[in-house]
Formats: sequence, structure tokens, C-alpha cells
Amino acid sequence: MKKKVQEDLFDKIVSLCKRRGFVYPGSDIYGGLANCWDYGPLGVQLKKNVKDMWWRTNVQERSDMVGLDAAIFMHPRTWEASGHVQAFSDPLVDCRKCKQRFRADELSPEAECPAGGHHDLTEVRQFNLMFETQMGVVQNETSRVYLRPETAQGIFVNFANVQSTSRRKLPFGIAQIGKSFRNEITPRRFIFRTREFEQMEIEYFVHPEKSEEAFNGWVQSRYAWYKQLGIREENLRLREHEPQELAHYAKGCFDVEYLFPWGWGELEGIANRTDFDLKRHAEYSGKSLEYFDPDTNEHITPWVIEPSGGVDRATFAFLVDAYDEDTAISAKGQEEVRVVLHLHPRLAPIQVAVLPLLKNKEPLVVKARELEMELRKHFLVDYDERGQIGKRYRRYDEIGTPCCITVDFDTLEDGTVTVRDRDSMAQDRVAIDQLRSYLNEKLLID
Amino acid sequence: MKKKVQEDLFDKIVSLCKRRGFVYPGSDIYGGLANCWDYGPLGVQLKKNVKDMWWRTNVQERSDMVGLDAAIFMHPRTWEASGHVQAFSDPLVDCRKCKQRFRADELSPEAECPAGGHHDLTEVRQFNLMFETQMGVVQNETSRVYLRPETAQGIFVNFANVQSTSRRKLPFGIAQIGKSFRNEITPRRFIFRTREFEQMEIEYFVHPEKSEEAFNGWVQSRYAWYKQLGIREENLRLREHEPQELAHYAKGCFDVEYLFPWGWGELEGIANRTDFDLKRHAEYSGKSLEYFDPDTNEHITPWVIEPSGGVDRATFAFLVDAYDEDTAISAKGQEEVRVVLHLHPRLAPIQVAVLPLLKNKEPLVVKARELEMELRKHFLVDYDERGQIGKRYRRYDEIGTPCCITVDFDTLEDGTVTVRDRDSMAQDRVAIDQLRSYLNEKLLID
Repeated sequence: MKKKVQEDLFDKIVSLCKRRGFVYPGSDIYGGLANCWDYGPLGVQLKKNVKDMWWRTNVQERSDMVGLDAAIFMHPRTWEASGHVQAFSDPLVDCRKCKQRFRADELSPEAECPAGGHHDLTEVRQFNLMFETQMGVVQNETSRVYLRPETAQGIFVNFANVQSTSRRKLPFGIAQIGKSFRNEITPRRFIFRTREFEQMEIEYFVHPEKSEEAFNGWVQSRYAWYKQLGIREENLRLREHEPQELAHYAKGCFDVEYLFPWGWGELEGIANRTDFDLKRHAEYSGKSLEYFDPDTNEHITPWVIEPSGGVDRATFAFLVDAYDEDTAISAKGQEEVRVVLHLHPRLAPIQVAVLPLLKNKEPLVVKARELEMELRKHFLVDYDERGQIGKRYRRYDEIGTPCCITVDFDTLEDGTVTVRDRDSMAQDRVAIDQLRSYLNEKLLID
Repeated sequence: MKKKVQEDLFDKIVSLCKRRGFVYPGSDIYGGLANCWDYGPLGVQLKKNVKDMWWRTNVQERSDMVGLDAAIFMHPRTWEASGHVQAFSDPLVDCRKCKQRFRADELSPEAECPAGGHHDLTEVRQFNLMFETQMGVVQNETSRVYLRPETAQGIFVNFANVQSTSRRKLPFGIAQIGKSFRNEITPRRFIFRTREFEQMEIEYFVHPEKSEEAFNGWVQSRYAWYKQLGIREENLRLREHEPQELAHYAKGCFDVEYLFPWGWGELEGIANRTDFDLKRHAEYSGKSLEYFDPDTNEHITPWVIEPSGGVDRATFAFLVDAYDEDTAISAKGQEEVRVVLHLHPRLAPIQVAVLPLLKNKEPLVVKARELEMELRKHFLVDYDERGQIGKRYRRYDEIGTPCCITVDFDTLEDGTVTVRDRDSMAQDRVAIDQLRSYLNEKLLID
């Protein structure tokens, strides 16, 4: 199942995503909208599984973490304190001839102007990436609000409320999943960089002296999460930021990177942000964001470790890494290419497919439907009766379904079914009353 | 546990929400932001449980439903087709003296103007409730986009893509959970009416002749969902819309209403929208949104049944309905008021609390921590060692935790723990190796 990075892998994935209902171009019937994407039936479930596994690992299973869901709309002062109003921008130039705008750092010097010859460029100016809108009925400065460009600030402004109401002692962390918005000049690469995107962020608050230890722990733990969910080690790496890449307040940063079809790209950054954020918000709000340590009797501003990942790009990486083509033998005995997604069973959008051997045999269909409805209480299930059984297996391979269950004439006699494994293509005969525990084991459900 | 609607119930819930970390005022340290709210550690988990149960009931357990997650940003033509650009507005008047604006239909005729005497009002004009922003780097008409005021249109524009890629036959439905935004002139009543809110919507596509049957089925099924999750029948009702309440294209509508502290309020509307939406989008996009029925060989535009609920107000209703005050006997033998949330165990943000009997006895604490970590793999768990055991029970009653587990000296001897029930306050002695199945039963986990 080892796979080389293929030239056309990117196109294959995008095509599979649209064809099978993972991801469609947004507003497709209206000709689309600038790199906006809609998640179809399989995509929404895959993405939900990614988020649920993140929540399980980082909130449910840890005793030092709690969740949060702050609003997208925040008080505008938030973005002054965070520095986004002043400095969250990209360099932009206009061409005086063709009237188009470009990101200055991406414009090739050799680019020819559509209006003829070379571009006639203005000075570089800064373009703020925050989306603005007006809240309330009076349209003036005071009602201007931004769509948050990151979920992190929602955590910082709630630090004191969370700490006191959940009665937490250091170290503890706050986890949040939610939409953010950045008016990128050049969104691109499918769901890797979009203007509307979903983040899964943690702010972990720690005594300054313990920050290095916590930082290293999170770097390891976040890397391990991707690996545990099936990303192959050769496609995953940790990259430490060079000193000149670091924000002035940051003490260290690692990126978890994935080998996308176009090269290495960031899945998640884990940064030691020191006490920068809490101190800024304390300054701008006039509210104390200090923590009283009952063990040492001192007031301190905690330091913060921030593991910040993208939901959409994680989902994309899981898809890319799961994609494989191998050779299978068709019903007619011929070799054919089999497309298969080796998704981790906890991520697969459909875990179990229930298939009556034949379509028009009523007892088979009734039995299969009965089994489908029973299994739906515990698993993500689909039902399909169309086409040869081998073709149906291929269709479920292509969307990453780990187990296909075939209901045949023996089922009616002896109460057993065939369970076919996506990866090995091996088939087991399993008694229906043993099916749930059999599937729990196959699907790594404890 | 029957409870009369209390005058001060609303204030009690809002206060409990902030005090215990269900819901905080948004951007609190900056003085808040116009009826925006942030969900704290308990609120985010309660809301997630509400959404997960909705998804389970309406997607996972049904063979005729699939999910979707469309972008918040949609092509502007969407909102022309849907009628929102033209008609999604509230009537607004200005006072020439005090320069304030009011919703015309809510301004009392006796209202005195802050600038002295009566208001001097302008003519009524329509104020569109959609938030606007600019997408891309060129700020002109063509880059104006809206924040979606409802998730429904994301489903309609994806109807053809979903139908063909998931190879669905009528009837089938598409379910979506996501944020929507309305620039309400008067947001109010805590999380009941906010400018940023979360919807859980279904569009169920059906042959026109079967629409009445499907409509009735959804009305019953959506009512039943709230009841199954613990809302008491006397606080829940179905209200049929009068003919004059219906949109011109709608064939019928029921609201599921809840008896909030201020009176009956809508939780969800179930409407028969006929073929209005698909026909409008077909007209505006020029794309066919017809369905070819292989059984009758005819092309039809399906009719649509729309069950449309609010996540935030459902969460609010579950909180209100669960709230109770009863009388308990304190450790000192005195009667005291016990605040308890009788939340359905599948909704409770913390299902199991693990409590060592004493704080400073190391073997107890070690054993309790060990048990906590084991239980976290399967349940939503918290750990608390602070204060008398009776006080701890009260704290968990107040946030709706169904089971408190006490680790005491007998635990160290015989491997049993005490499990105390939130509602009956009865205590069972349970062997640790039986605990998981005991809790599964108590928490209604199958």
C-alpha cells in the first residue's frame, strides 16, 4: 500500500470528491464562488468524524482540558488587542494599466500585463485580511464588526470566566472548534486554503517555568494524533521554525506538516506564545487576567501553548493519504484497477455497507433492510442493492468503507452473513448475533 | 418534579449559566457585544450533545437521509432566488429628535422620546436583515456577499449534486447543522434570539402526491424528538399556522413550541414548501432541478418538507425544562434548597463525576484518578476532590450530572464504589468491574 506522490493525485482526489459526494464546488449551480466548497453527504460525515476524534482525544479523554464555543462576532477591541487591526495584512499592488490587483510577494517579475507589455505597478500597500460587516441598524464606525480571523482570541478573552467557573488550577487547556474567515488574496489548492475555514484550536495555560515541558508534550501529542488516525509516517513530519520565522513574542514553534501532492504543507502549528496574548487583553480591557497560584501564593500571568490545526486541511490530508490504486481481479477474471481509500475505520464516513446478494429477491431484501436498521443504531451504515456484488464492493472501496456485509440465501437458512474486508478483500462468515462485537473489533470501537 | 412557571426562572437560568460555565456574555472583558453569547465548558458540551442526538436521529438512524455542510458564503444570486434580497426585512422608523431607530411594529405609541415629549418619527422603511461583507480585494458591487440568513438555501442549491452523487430515489432528505446570521433590530431573551445562531435544518424531497403524508410524519417525528429527550409534555405543543400566517407558496406549517419563562416560543417549524424553492433556483440558475422518476418515467420537481430548528433555543429549552428546586437534608440535618437539572443522560454535559471521599488520602486519590481516566474512554467525566461529599453532590446536581461515583476506603478493600443517582438521590454499591455496564444502563447508552 506504499504510494509514491503522483503528479495527477491532486486532480484525482478533487474529482473523486465531487463524483462521490465528499466535496462540491460551493454554489455550483450559480457557477461557483471563489474557492468556496460545500461538503456533501460523505464529506460532512468524514469531517464530523475528524472533529469528533479531535474532541475525544483533546477534551473527553484528558483531565486537564475543557471545551469552549465562542461567538464568531467579537467586540472590535479584541482585534486591536490581538494586533489584527494593525498588522493582519498582505502586501498588495495595483497595475495602472490593467486595473488588476496582485499579492506583491507572489507576482512574478516576468509577468506580462494583459493590457500589453509589462505591468505598471503602484507602490505596495497593506491589505487587511479581516472581513468586515455592520452590526445593528446604524451604519457607522461604532457598529463595525469583523468576522473572526481565528478562534484563538475567543479563548483568550474567556480565560478568566472559564478558569473561575470550572475552578481549574494550572496547567489546564481550553479547546475550541469553529469557523474562521480570512479574505485571502489568493485562496487555492481545493480545501487547503479557503476564505471560510474551520479551526480546531487549543490554548494550554501553564506556569511560565513549566512552559517548555508542556510545549514539548503538545508537539509530540499532536504529531501522534495524525499518526494514530492513519497518516503514514513517511508523509508526516515535524518542522521547527527558524528564529526569524517566529513572532517577536513567541518562544518556539513546530509545524506538523503533511506531504501533499504539491509538497509539504502545514496541518497544524504548535507555538509557545508566552504571556503575550493574556497581557495584551489585560491591557486593552483593563481587566486582570492574572492567575492566583494557591500553592505558591503568587499572582502570575500564565504562559500559553497553542496547538492550532485546520479541520479542512486535516480532512484533505486524511483523504490524500488514504488514496490508493491497486490491482484486483474482476468477475470476468480480468485485472482491473481498484481505487480504494484506506481510511481509518473511525474516520470512514460509511463504516458498514449492507448488501443483499440480489435485488429482486424479496426475502433477501427484507432481511438486509432489517439488518441495516439494526446496525444503524451503532454504526454509520449504508444500504445498496444495485448492480453485481463485485461492483458494489468497488464502489464502497472507493469511499473507504471498511466492512461490506452480504446477505445471501445461506443467511436465510443459518443466520450468518459474509463480511468482506476493504483492505485485505478477505471474507469472513459471521453469525448475525455475533456481528456487533465482530464489527466493534474491526472498526476499533471500544 | 412538576414545576410551575416561575417569575424569576429566566434570571435564575441565566445566572446559573454564567456561574457554572454554560453560557457567558460574549466578549465579556470588553463589556460584551449586543446579545452575543459564548458557550463555556458545560454549554459547549450540552450543545454538542443536542446536535449529536439530532444527527443520530435524523441522519445516522434513517435510511432515507443524508447530511450536508454548505459554506456560509454563497453566490449572491442565491439570495435573489430565495427572495431574501428583496423581502427579508423588518420595518424601521427614525426619530428626528433623538436620532434613534426603532422597529416600527414594536414601538409603543406612548413611548416618550429621550429628547423630550413624543417621538417625531420618519416614514416606515424596510431594513434588510442580511449581513453584508466584501469578498476579494476589489471593493465594488460584484464582490458583495452576504452571511447566509438560513442554512436551507445551501441544501436547495446542492439538491442535484447530492441526489446524483448519492444516487438517491425519492423520497429522501438532506440534513444540515450550521451557523446563520440575521441583523435583528431587537435581539433578546438570552440565547433565544441572537444575531449569530445555529440551525439544524432538513429539506425532505418527496413526490408531490406524497407530500401530505411526509409532512405529517415529520411533524410527529420532530415533536417526538424533544419529548424523548426529556421535555415534559405540558411544556411542549404543536401549533398549526393560520392560513394568513403562511407564506404564499406554503401549503401548511406547524410550529413545535415550548413554554419558556415568558410564554410559548417556537423551537422548530415544519413547513410544506411545495416546489417553490427548487423552481426558483432552477429559474435563477438556468439549471434543471428536476428529478427523473424511474418508476413512472416522468420528470418532476419534488416538493419539499422543511423541519427547521434552532440549536441555541433547543439547548435553552432543555436547560429550562430540566431546572428544578427541591428540598434536601444537609449534612447538619437541616432542610435546604437543592437546585437540580434533570437533564436527559444523553444530553448531560458531564455524565459521571468521580469523587474520592477525602482529599488528602493518597490511596483514595490515586484510585479515583485511575478510575476517572478509565471511564473517560467511554463517558463524559469530571473529577472533584474539593469539599464535603454532600456539597460535591449538590454541585453536580446543579449541572445535571446523572451519576456521582464515590471512591472510599471500602473501595480499596473490595473493589466496589458508591454510585449516587441525581434524581432519586439513592445510592448503589457497584463493583468496579461491573461499572461500565451499570453506567451504560443508567445513562441510556445502548
